[in-house]
Amino acid sequence: MSSGQNRIAETLDTDYYAVIFTSIRTDDDRGYGQMADRMVRLTSQMPGFLGADSGGDSDGLGITVSYWKSEDAIECWKAHSQHQVAQAAGKTTWYTEYALRVATVERAYGKISELAEAADDQR
Amino acid sequence: MSSGQNRIAETLDTDYYAVIFTSIRTDDDRGYGQMADRMVRLTSQMPGFLGADSGGDSDGLGITVSYWKSEDAIECWKAHSQHQVAQAAGKTTWYTEYALRVATVERAYGKISELAEAADDQR
Repeated sequence: MSSGQNRIAETLDTDYYAVIFTSIRTDDDRGYGQMADRMVRLTSQMPGFLGADSGGDSDGLGITVSYWKSEDAIECWKAHSQHQVAQAAGKTTWYTEYALRVATVERAYGKISELAEAADDQR
Repeated sequence: MSSGQNRIAETLDTDYYAVIFTSIRTDDDRGYGQMADRMVRLTSQMPGFLGADSGGDSDGLGITVSYWKSEDAIECWKAHSQHQVAQAAGKTTWYTEYALRVATVERAYGKISELAEAADDQR
């Protein structure tokens, strides 16, 4: 999932948060795809949501990094009733392993569109 | 790529750094796979490297999150001569878009193995 016209999430400033969710799927697919789609739609409507990128590999590993304006926004999403249902099903049914890391973005650079080429890291 | 016996990187403590690299590939594959494999091998030998997870989607999006003990370790890897060559080729040949974000991990939880189930986030 990406935000805006570009393919990858556009958040090239600092003072925001990254939530890094890494998982290994079980073989049990019951309802997973539908729930994942619902969570993508829901996050995009959450206050303070900046964008997200997701990928995986052929062995069931998945990574979703979502970006948020504040800790409050992350807490609000964590506590959302439908997200709580998804979290519970993830633990019991869909994931053999998972890790969730909340991190403060200290600096960022890159090339997200022709018009938005950021200066390279100057540190 | 994962570290250790488990499938996803094991870094469930705090006071470390995440480097989130997101990219969109061009259609030009010249040398990419070989270089990517070399970078995976090299990072695993770098001082302060804790682990990494990588995934992608079918449209060329890729995400690699690598974990590091210190800013110095990240700088050391950034400046590595072979990595510099890879970075340059990435900009000119392999990526239409990319973003690199350096973030401080504030907290983490999850279930990485049967023996290492971490307590849920207590905040």
